[in-house]
Amino acid sequence: MQGWEAIRAEVLRRIRAREWPPGGLIPGEEALSEEFGVARATVNRALTALAEAGVIERKKRAGTRVAELPVRRARLDIPVIRLDVLARGLAYRFDLLADRMAPAPVPVTARLGLPEGAPMRYLETLHLAGGRPYVLESRWLNPAVLPEPAPDFARESVNEWLVMHVSLVSGDIAFTAEPASAREAEVLGVAPGTALLVAERTTQGTDAPVTFVRLAHAPGHRVQMAF
Amino acid sequence: MQGWEAIRAEVLRRIRAREWPPGGLIPGEEALSEEFGVARATVNRALTALAEAGVIERKKRAGTRVAELPVRRARLDIPVIRLDVLARGLAYRFDLLADRMAPAPVPVTARLGLPEGAPMRYLETLHLAGGRPYVLESRWLNPAVLPEPAPDFARESVNEWLVMHVSLVSGDIAFTAEPASAREAEVLGVAPGTALLVAERTTQGTDAPVTFVRLAHAPGHRVQMAF
Repeated sequence: MQGWEAIRAEVLRRIRAREWPPGGLIPGEEALSEEFGVARATVNRALTALAEAGVIERKKRAGTRVAELPVRRARLDIPVIRLDVLARGLAYRFDLLADRMAPAPVPVTARLGLPEGAPMRYLETLHLAGGRPYVLESRWLNPAVLPEPAPDFARESVNEWLVMHVSLVSGDIAFTAEPASAREAEVLGVAPGTALLVAERTTQGTDAPVTFVRLAHAPGHRVQMAF
Repeated sequence: MQGWEAIRAEVLRRIRAREWPPGGLIPGEEALSEEFGVARATVNRALTALAEAGVIERKKRAGTRVAELPVRRARLDIPVIRLDVLARGLAYRFDLLADRMAPAPVPVTARLGLPEGAPMRYLETLHLAGGRPYVLESRWLNPAVLPEPAPDFARESVNEWLVMHVSLVSGDIAFTAEPASAREAEVLGVAPGTALLVAERTTQGTDAPVTFVRLAHAPGHRVQMAF
């Protein structure tokens, strides 16, 4: 009886040999389990691994196809900033530098799908690791996602509060390298123009848009992921 | 009959309410399908979605636990650079700037698990988008993964060749922001010290370590992923 790795290797061999060409349908799990003489669950595990690796694409009802364009897929775990700092063996604290209601800039409302000029809560939080600036968080938050009374973001960081209380969100994240602005340089304690790793995240909840956040990381920050 | 989204919402409610506390086991699929009066496949789909979101962790035989630390998981599709450029609607070409055998530096062999000073193939490739520098690729390649005769990396970029021919790899990728070195500034046509988004990837194949690559992106580059 063959293990799932053997099935994966054979499926991969057929794809590389173009017996199953890019974009083409491959046989169903039932047929493969019969051909290979293994349980359907074994075929399923092999195909799941290949789908996770981006080699094949599985569609409900439409069957499984060989991917047109080879991609490699990496997974990024985005932790709460406090836990990220503690995992690095450093003490954590944060300072809430700004907290006000203001009309959100157009790029923010556009990305979140909110009306232009919608009043949002603007929160600026400096996260510190071992007493030194770690990341400057500039966030626009949809006030509609907050309960009454609203949480005190000077006591619990809005980053952590959102992860704990606003669940099942989706969104996108973009990484860029940017020269530190005057404000970033001042708060992070670096020279203006220093290369900073910047992450911008847009988050949608199940019911409403949640937040847009820009994270400017202190120099040397690495974002690591596995594939 | 409830859909899988309703099951997901109820499981999530119990986790948020700490009826099922962090780190604790939750009931098996069989028990949940009975309790909710839905098919086991429906429960499975709901739990799969929650596992993908990082809310629960499923272990073979050990059952399903509520995650100790909430994380959000993003997925990055790493395309072949040529296809990434074409997808941006720009013409693609590349120049092979260096190709030689040399003893690999210690940080490279250490990461790949190769003996210190092992001879590796060093390849420097400049990828251009719309005729302008897009990314400078500096790569150490394990010659053991190459066939005889070796491919001509002046005709097919080593980036693309590896994705097409060396399959089922795993590894890690790290993003940092770095000031452009003198070499990077010269090749990318920017001022030294310009903030560059740098990706470093270490890749292991099923049989042998494959490659270490550093990608220095032209200013303004965004790496985008979804969660």
